[in-house]
Amino acid sequence: MTAHTLTLASWQCPYAAGIDEALARLDTTAAQARAQGAELLVCPEMSLTGYQIGAQAVAALAEPADGALAQAAAAIARRHGIAIVFGYPEHNTGAKPYNAVQFIGADGERKANYRKTHLFGDIDRAQFSPGPQAPAVFDWNGWRLGLLVCYDIEFPEPARGLALQGVDAILVPTANMVHFDEVQRVLLPARALENRVFLAYANACGQEGDTRYGGLSTVCAPMGEVQVQAGRGEQLLLTTLTRSALHSARSTSPLPDRRSDLY
Amino acid sequence: MTAHTLTLASWQCPYAAGIDEALARLDTTAAQARAQGAELLVCPEMSLTGYQIGAQAVAALAEPADGALAQAAAAIARRHGIAIVFGYPEHNTGAKPYNAVQFIGADGERKANYRKTHLFGDIDRAQFSPGPQAPAVFDWNGWRLGLLVCYDIEFPEPARGLALQGVDAILVPTANMVHFDEVQRVLLPARALENRVFLAYANACGQEGDTRYGGLSTVCAPMGEVQVQAGRGEQLLLTTLTRSALHSARSTSPLPDRRSDLY
Repeated sequence: MTAHTLTLASWQCPYAAGIDEALARLDTTAAQARAQGAELLVCPEMSLTGYQIGAQAVAALAEPADGALAQAAAAIARRHGIAIVFGYPEHNTGAKPYNAVQFIGADGERKANYRKTHLFGDIDRAQFSPGPQAPAVFDWNGWRLGLLVCYDIEFPEPARGLALQGVDAILVPTANMVHFDEVQRVLLPARALENRVFLAYANACGQEGDTRYGGLSTVCAPMGEVQVQAGRGEQLLLTTLTRSALHSARSTSPLPDRRSDLY
Repeated sequence: MTAHTLTLASWQCPYAAGIDEALARLDTTAAQARAQGAELLVCPEMSLTGYQIGAQAVAALAEPADGALAQAAAAIARRHGIAIVFGYPEHNTGAKPYNAVQFIGADGERKANYRKTHLFGDIDRAQFSPGPQAPAVFDWNGWRLGLLVCYDIEFPEPARGLALQGVDAILVPTANMVHFDEVQRVLLPARALENRVFLAYANACGQEGDTRYGGLSTVCAPMGEVQVQAGRGEQLLLTTLTRSALHSARSTSPLPDRRSDLY
């Protein structure tokens, strides 16, 4: 457990029936993940409230980045000594909330808050405002990290933007439906390889209203290898990222060969 | 043979011993490809002269875009009634030549000339100057096409630039070595899927000096499917691109959801 490695758990889970259940399950899962050696637990998109809950419910549950939901998650992080990435609707005065994710360290401190910038179809647009800012990196425990949400990773630009800021690993809470497996199969390995970064994609599973989520949560290594991948059902997917894999992959990084004068 | 379909042949071949042999084989192969129904023949990078032939030979063989090499290729295209994409060293006054590719219609007219913009390591840098311009699209037979060369496709930016110009298919002469199969396996499907375009990657095979090329020439369909892929050896790889596949894939295109305000 040094900066040479980062053991992370991607929690592939169905949405809970409500916030109390979501927090209780997060508490249990954080304890399990820590007991198995994880330093970081990554949850799916909108993990604390559910994702397709409707514009009215989203608006009613929206909170500021230091609201009660974040405080509850921070207490869980501190209690078990594990960093947590969770999703929630962030309050946005006078407009629809943001589809936000937050990184909280094992000490309960918020290290980053990111608002999904690429909204997916009517599902997102009916419920959320688009994030106004490109993602930024942050440093944690010797690792440079970045957050994206779901559809963001299907575009090469946001991951590239993080890579140009020196990101080591991109953490992607998501809620990707069945029949869209090409994201996991085709796009995730490419994002990792073209940027020489780790990528952790933590998906929902199970049913939410009429929607079935596809699971297949994936961690890609920086040469585009699928380092570990979940099945379709609930799973706590542990894996260890190593700096040596980054170092090796970056010896052949294409980034210095970019023609930024032409883009 | 309407604009609703485009039948193309990717010619995966070893480099010839010299220009005369290269042209003779191109003549034979163009005839074969046409006889099999191809409207377009795509050859590997630097197909007319060889690729790793050294800076001195490259400089000696370099020609303007309407030079003897291009005229010979145009005569072959006209003779067999098939469009041809070939690679050659383009003269560059007072500097190293460009690593160029050219598209010649079945009537012998040059439709496009592109100079590789992303140079790969010492191999390219010792022999070539980098292309000074981002790739442009061109229209041919009802299809909007674009050219890239080899390493260019490993970057998301050039393919994206072509997609934003409305390209239907990206043609990529290449000389990708063995042990770099992740380009074909990981990156090509992603470039096709993220841009909803066809992609034809025509690789060399066999040995050239100390280098062994990896073959696996590939055509990807616009949902990222590997539509057809060669093995390791010489092969004329025919396949038909359809507008209906483009139309279907573009009904879910992410391009309108780009956040160009943030890139």
